[in-house]
Amino acid sequence: MINVGVLGATGAVGQRFVQLLADHPWFHIQALTASERSSGKLYGNVVQWRMDTPFSDHAGKTVVTPTTVESVKDCDIVFSALPPEIAGKVEAEMADAGIGVCSNARSHRMDPDVPLVIPEVNPDHLGLIDVQRDKGRDGFIVTNPNCSTIVLAMALAPLRRFEFHDVRVATMQAISGGGFQGVSAMDIYDNVVPYIGAEEEKMETETLKIMGTFDGSRIADASFRVSASCHRVPVIDGHTMAIWVDVKESVDEVKKAYASFKSPLSNLPLQPAKPVELLEQPDRPQPRLDRNRGRGMTVSVGRVREGLRFVAMGHNTIRGAAGASVLNAELIYTKKYL
Amino acid sequence: MINVGVLGATGAVGQRFVQLLADHPWFHIQALTASERSSGKLYGNVVQWRMDTPFSDHAGKTVVTPTTVESVKDCDIVFSALPPEIAGKVEAEMADAGIGVCSNARSHRMDPDVPLVIPEVNPDHLGLIDVQRDKGRDGFIVTNPNCSTIVLAMALAPLRRFEFHDVRVATMQAISGGGFQGVSAMDIYDNVVPYIGAEEEKMETETLKIMGTFDGSRIADASFRVSASCHRVPVIDGHTMAIWVDVKESVDEVKKAYASFKSPLSNLPLQPAKPVELLEQPDRPQPRLDRNRGRGMTVSVGRVREGLRFVAMGHNTIRGAAGASVLNAELIYTKKYL
Amino acid sequence: MINVGVLGATGAVGQRFVQLLADHPWFHIQALTASERSSGKLYGNVVQWRMDTPFSDHAGKTVVTPTTVESVKDCDIVFSALPPEIAGKVEAEMADAGIGVCSNARSHRMDPDVPLVIPEVNPDHLGLIDVQRDKGRDGFIVTNPNCSTIVLAMALAPLRRFEFHDVRVATMQAISGGGFQGVSAMDIYDNVVPYIGAEEEKMETETLKIMGTFDGSRIADASFRVSASCHRVPVIDGHTMAIWVDVKESVDEVKKAYASFKSPLSNLPLQPAKPVELLEQPDRPQPRLDRNRGRGMTVSVGRVREGLRFVAMGHNTIRGAAGASVLNAELIYTKKYL
Amino acid sequence: MINVGVLGATGAVGQRFVQLLADHPWFHIQALTASERSSGKLYGNVVQWRMDTPFSDHAGKTVVTPTTVESVKDCDIVFSALPPEIAGKVEAEMADAGIGVCSNARSHRMDPDVPLVIPEVNPDHLGLIDVQRDKGRDGFIVTNPNCSTIVLAMALAPLRRFEFHDVRVATMQAISGGGFQGVSAMDIYDNVVPYIGAEEEKMETETLKIMGTFDGSRIADASFRVSASCHRVPVIDGHTMAIWVDVKESVDEVKKAYASFKSPLSNLPLQPAKPVELLEQPDRPQPRLDRNRGRGMTVSVGRVREGLRFVAMGHNTIRGAAGASVLNAELIYTKKYL
Repeated sequence: MINVGVLGATGAVGQRFVQLLADHPWFHIQALTASERSSGKLYGNVVQWRMDTPFSDHAGKTVVTPTTVESVKDCDIVFSALPPEIAGKVEAEMADAGIGVCSNARSHRMDPDVPLVIPEVNPDHLGLIDVQRDKGRDGFIVTNPNCSTIVLAMALAPLRRFEFHDVRVATMQAISGGGFQGVSAMDIYDNVVPYIGAEEEKMETETLKIMGTFDGSRIADASFRVSASCHRVPVIDGHTMAIWVDVKESVDEVKKAYASFKSPLSNLPLQPAKPVELLEQPDRPQPRLDRNRGRGMTVSVGRVREGLRFVAMGHNTIRGAAGASVLNAELIYTKKYL
Repeated sequence: MINVGVLGATGAVGQRFVQLLADHPWFHIQALTASERSSGKLYGNVVQWRMDTPFSDHAGKTVVTPTTVESVKDCDIVFSALPPEIAGKVEAEMADAGIGVCSNARSHRMDPDVPLVIPEVNPDHLGLIDVQRDKGRDGFIVTNPNCSTIVLAMALAPLRRFEFHDVRVATMQAISGGGFQGVSAMDIYDNVVPYIGAEEEKMETETLKIMGTFDGSRIADASFRVSASCHRVPVIDGHTMAIWVDVKESVDEVKKAYASFKSPLSNLPLQPAKPVELLEQPDRPQPRLDRNRGRGMTVSVGRVREGLRFVAMGHNTIRGAAGASVLNAELIYTKKYL
Repeated sequence: MINVGVLGATGAVGQRFVQLLADHPWFHIQALTASERSSGKLYGNVVQWRMDTPFSDHAGKTVVTPTTVESVKDCDIVFSALPPEIAGKVEAEMADAGIGVCSNARSHRMDPDVPLVIPEVNPDHLGLIDVQRDKGRDGFIVTNPNCSTIVLAMALAPLRRFEFHDVRVATMQAISGGGFQGVSAMDIYDNVVPYIGAEEEKMETETLKIMGTFDGSRIADASFRVSASCHRVPVIDGHTMAIWVDVKESVDEVKKAYASFKSPLSNLPLQPAKPVELLEQPDRPQPRLDRNRGRGMTVSVGRVREGLRFVAMGHNTIRGAAGASVLNAELIYTKKYL
Repeated sequence: MINVGVLGATGAVGQRFVQLLADHPWFHIQALTASERSSGKLYGNVVQWRMDTPFSDHAGKTVVTPTTVESVKDCDIVFSALPPEIAGKVEAEMADAGIGVCSNARSHRMDPDVPLVIPEVNPDHLGLIDVQRDKGRDGFIVTNPNCSTIVLAMALAPLRRFEFHDVRVATMQAISGGGFQGVSAMDIYDNVVPYIGAEEEKMETETLKIMGTFDGSRIADASFRVSASCHRVPVIDGHTMAIWVDVKESVDEVKKAYASFKSPLSNLPLQPAKPVELLEQPDRPQPRLDRNRGRGMTVSVGRVREGLRFVAMGHNTIRGAAGASVLNAELIYTKKYL
């Protein structure tokens, strides 16, 4: 078993990590870190648990430690659910100290030497780990995309065989994307909020890095353009998005591309049978009905119609956050980077 | 006072008509029609009233009549909130019998001789009333657009001074658009439904007719293209939409166009001071906070940013349905078509 | 394996039956019945599936049959999710024809010879099966309570050791209790509806039968009084209720009664470790966080405080409907009634 | 015109005060206070306005001042929407300095010399103002009840002619009761939270003071007992509650008491025609449909049935907060206490 830690283990994404790691076949929770206030206490006594399955006995009895290099020195991998204002510095320190950091924070996503990875889309970008090591880092930082970016990038991946230049995306994002306390009920109930801070910029830049080309030393961004309009809607989990792509191919050819899309990988515990699933019913995907496909790791695509337009939807705190990081760690482990 | 009737007065849009006409300075409710089941009974006894202000005493004591020409023979104008499967035939019979029909139903919207009017956008299209009369009709049919189309068309109207060819719109539509019983709670709560039957087609065709050119005998459709993606979200009232338009002008020039947009009309009782209002706060418009601007008759526009992208929102059962029809009737009255 | 059928398999409760039976260790789906319209077609092609896990391959490929005795003649047990206007007659016919009917419908619940059973509360009432058979019925009808009654009865069961006479209960019930189409979004969103047809009567009568005494031939109702006030709230699944009971014991003694409550049974596949679970956090139970405890079969109790007052909550379509029927069938099977 | 101030004018209740005072016939906004951060700036520039009608030009152009005696020295009355941790001290200082304080804060509600008033229920309690003055205070403090208490007390007021001892109430309270940021969407969406801090205690004590007897020098609490169970539900505005009262009278007699209940007052601008309105439809009151009765100042009662049980509902931020304070001030003004 690989020893792992979760940084920021009491928040919304942190709890997802603890839930997903509960009975993981490869990874064993060795450290759970949180703010000073919780340090020294049992995780089960300090966490305000909000997942719909209970935390494991092991997690509940783990003593929470502060978010320091010392706390995770026995971990091979740490999963970071830290807020960006903290993540940048701590993650770098841990990576320099020899620890593998799989981060959901945005701090290092756009760093030239840091891979921004979706295993089914750009696993080769993990090669940047070697670049980090060549520069003297003992561990590494690998990041996963923002929760809305990952849905878009996975929905575009099967279309890479076609030529396109112009992507428009209007999102309808779930409230869990803002964390447990991030969105007040008075703000979002019976309402749509047409603004999520920095979200459009993330979708417009991260997508190009993910779908860019790695030549062994650096990533060349993809050359298409993404124009995003991001909105919060009253949905608990699951980001839905309307997407236009200027591919020239027919609806049938696009559907075939979706139907035949397969992961280049196999045998990762958290990987779903279908990373991208094409739904043919006229009114799908829907977040409440489809967000748990593939245990929350499948991105659903539907309503492919001329234009070329379609709708994509994925679980924002599983595929879009904690699950993405754990899947990255699984890939890293099989690729012998530990 | 002008005698008016409401066809289908007990449904969601019918109730809005009754509410808006309650103390109208020009129009007096003379007839309220509904299905046979309710005929002969007092409106106040049969209506399942769901508006948030009570119906007027006069409406409550009006005897409901069946939806026939005979029932409305003393009306100068009737407002139609009929379902499309009934509206087509009845509205034509009434118009032939000399009655002015202001219809919210879709049945005749795309008929070549029937104007599809938004007073602030294409009042000249009312000239088609003369075409109807030239063909022997004593009354007339005038229609207003579908509830999502009207928000889009009003948001585009201030941009007509610029050249554009390509409009993309992703809607987030309210549940009241489906009527009182149209959307089940199990379908939409904690959910997004990315499909509304025939809605995209309506937006893509009606918009071009509204923004088309009338040469005295017929409408030539506008030449741009609309590509719509329509979604239902858990909001009671207010359709929000993300819009892209390929104008070449800068964000500032576009904002100036919105800020300077004025109605060509004046003195219509239901007309708002600002038919289109530009909001500068970064997270507006929002349906719950902005849908009642201008007593529900103002379309709010915000987040104008390069792309060119912006967000528009309007009240779907006031500006998007009953209010639209009443405003059309006000325009018709001032233009001496009665 | 026992062959079972589901009557009314395409509705909300019917789908729950199909989901719960998907990999049941004892029961094998042999028949799925629905309306004539669906007969002869594959279940997977006609069902509008709304569960959040997919139906089994076996269920999907089962040919739907009409709801007749003939359709289920090879079943040992049928689970009835029929509407009450149909259930009464069909269930009796099937029971007379030798089939064991486990019904979620209300039609026969209050019949003197029909047991109304919660396995952890009144398993001995199954003895009424013998009464039915003595009267010449080859099969039997066993019913489970209404979805709100079952939560109340389970919450009261641990208090039976104390004396009480007066129970008041105010419910906050989920929209799924009305079926997929039963509650319109316009009725319940941003709203509370303080009325659910016949619900209060069901709680006030069924509870007394369940907690009554069986003397081998008939049930004598319990002698306390239940006064219910039932309300629908905007929650998908999970009925929450505020309960007052006039026990004289202290809060501590009541908590002990809850903590020590155990099922008299064991080894039923669907039975949860804790049929009634006492939560000590000050703000629990909550439907979204606690409805899936015990895979939806646990009733959660919290806020036990002087008065004596407490809050109970249970999953209305699992413990309150399909799961209740399946658990009854498991009990019946182990008791050798087949 | 009477000069008035609003303390804490930028919060949820503060905004309601500003909205209700916008075109008040007697009261003129002279001061708007808020935290230091906002002091010196125009109200229109610092407030995050969330009401569904715009603030008045006058309010928008008022310079915000700190919450000090100096800021409100030219006011005859101040309305307090302060949080309790601040209200206690500041309100007493202002009252000592000669200002009339109408407070929505809980700090002084249970002070023996401070009246806790609902104009239609216990207007005579204002006599405590004289007691305050006899003790040397130049101004006064008058409080209105907590938002759930006021609905209960008004629903009980028409029953005072009957004898009763035992009141049980289960509330379903709106999220606006927690302020704009008080309830996170992740906590309440698709959920019920069966706990609101200190709410049950407030209902159980405040109600007895309001319905107590004033002998010219002190209040003797009413002698019945209130047992409350308080729950938050996903509703924007409007507290609904199920109530049991042990009156011996019949349902018809109780209904007559409701139908004949009239305010002892008249001619107060904010007073509704019916302070308590009996609804006879079987499924009312409902918060979304009934909360705006009497411009939010009417408490609706329905489902009166044997038990004796009924349902009451009132708008929590109008009748339950800002409107209650303004109505108190109107009463105070007519009673010549200024």
